[in-house]
Amino acid sequence: MLGVTILGNNSALPAFDRHPTSQLVTVDDQVFLVDCGEGSQVQLAKYKIRWSRINHIFISHLHGDHYFGLPGFIHSMGLLNRENDLHLFAPAPLQNILNLQFCAAGSTLPYTLHFHPLEQEGELVRTDRCRVSCFATKHRIPCWGFKFEQIRAPRKINPLKARNHKLASSVFDRLKWGEDAINEEGQLINNESVTEAAPKPKSYAYCADTIYDETLVEKVQAVDILYHETTYLKDLADRAALRFHATTAQAAAIALKAGAGKLLIGHFSSKYDRLDAFQQEAREIFPNTELALEGATYFA
Amino acid sequence: MLGVTILGNNSALPAFDRHPTSQLVTVDDQVFLVDCGEGSQVQLAKYKIRWSRINHIFISHLHGDHYFGLPGFIHSMGLLNRENDLHLFAPAPLQNILNLQFCAAGSTLPYTLHFHPLEQEGELVRTDRCRVSCFATKHRIPCWGFKFEQIRAPRKINPLKARNHKLASSVFDRLKWGEDAINEEGQLINNESVTEAAPKPKSYAYCADTIYDETLVEKVQAVDILYHETTYLKDLADRAALRFHATTAQAAAIALKAGAGKLLIGHFSSKYDRLDAFQQEAREIFPNTELALEGATYFA
Repeated sequence: MLGVTILGNNSALPAFDRHPTSQLVTVDDQVFLVDCGEGSQVQLAKYKIRWSRINHIFISHLHGDHYFGLPGFIHSMGLLNRENDLHLFAPAPLQNILNLQFCAAGSTLPYTLHFHPLEQEGELVRTDRCRVSCFATKHRIPCWGFKFEQIRAPRKINPLKARNHKLASSVFDRLKWGEDAINEEGQLINNESVTEAAPKPKSYAYCADTIYDETLVEKVQAVDILYHETTYLKDLADRAALRFHATTAQAAAIALKAGAGKLLIGHFSSKYDRLDAFQQEAREIFPNTELALEGATYFA
Repeated sequence: MLGVTILGNNSALPAFDRHPTSQLVTVDDQVFLVDCGEGSQVQLAKYKIRWSRINHIFISHLHGDHYFGLPGFIHSMGLLNRENDLHLFAPAPLQNILNLQFCAAGSTLPYTLHFHPLEQEGELVRTDRCRVSCFATKHRIPCWGFKFEQIRAPRKINPLKARNHKLASSVFDRLKWGEDAINEEGQLINNESVTEAAPKPKSYAYCADTIYDETLVEKVQAVDILYHETTYLKDLADRAALRFHATTAQAAAIALKAGAGKLLIGHFSSKYDRLDAFQQEAREIFPNTELALEGATYFA
């Protein structure tokens, strides 16, 4: 299972009860927090999301609308007596900011916070069932996108067929990962005759804040869900470029070129009260587009 | 006019739709923001308070629930194209934190932010009609309370009586400030025969976070409204002391000893869902006690 829950879908200035950027990405048993704008802890509580399951936080860049909720959140986790380690992946300057804040407050956390500075594209986290990697996006300051992928699941062994083919349990591990195996009578048994295919692994790419950038296409190729910012409608392409942001049409073009399964759009400018034009414009180019709505979860 | 509007009345962990500490203090034509917990900018918007009128912000201490909303707020004022200077009074370490945040964001404000480190008790701001001063409170880290006072208003001249007493306008200024004056016929005219008393100047003291501390009594003597934290009910006096906080009974005792006009209590612990016991316990000692309720304004 891979799901993306939206906690905040607005750009810098909170407006129309929309909040600055934050998302929760669930990949099977792992829950990841992606960006943490001001008020994210209140949004998590509003949507009854258990904080204790979050062990990794990813901060895309150090514009305030993507991290001003982080100090309060990690502090609140301490007040709630968190004990598990927490891993924070973020641009390097955040570490000094947090250190100064802790120092000024004369406080320490009751859990260990591991700070991992984002320095180059590549893998950040790997568990048995998923991996998280980062890639650079083009914004006014260093900015990172994140890709979440289920790892290929093992094939499922049919126990009855395995017995019929006289396969010992010692070869099951090799069968799970798609290899053929020799049975107790020295015969080569074809993998597919005793296993069933694993479901296709799902993937999600979060492109953070970015100008229209075709180098993204390769980085997010064929993901099941692509999140691309649409700060502006398509008539404001000039303003978007000036501010290193993107429009509906640009987000949809990236999704189309990348062959994404679904496009999720957000980071709406506070100048827009209604959002229906965002969906309409993007769908003209990429029909399977959804607005990133706060409180909603989108499944790959 | 002196009024106190509550934007947040909770202690560190947001709960029960209560927010971390922030207040707006209005003294005639001046609007002061006192502390700025996470989400304060949203609370200001919710209560339709015009940000542009705020020219001074006071931060009592550097626990996150008193300032984690500040970076977002001063940044948002920039996005709203503020041009007027803004004066920020806060413990010195905040300056480096803000500087690092601005540097990491590669951003500057379109207005001038004057940082005034809080270093000693005394006057911070003086205008024609009011003064603001700070005083130390006893908390786990350096912490400051703030006192807001109307300055003695001028007496009001009765123009008809002044004419009848043949007083020239050149002596009006002296009359306004309570002096007698010589009229055009060389007679000494008693001030009170041509002026009316100015209304009594009002005052408000905000005691921030503090342990029970009787040295506060002198600092807040006879204020019209005293805000004193009540993180806990009176049965948790030990816990309060351990954490450098106060209880209902302790806040009420300070108000009684100081001869305050009204006691306003807040900074409620997240362990309490209902607040009625806070009011009840404080009123047993100091009857004119009000709960600091978000969105409400209390007038001196």
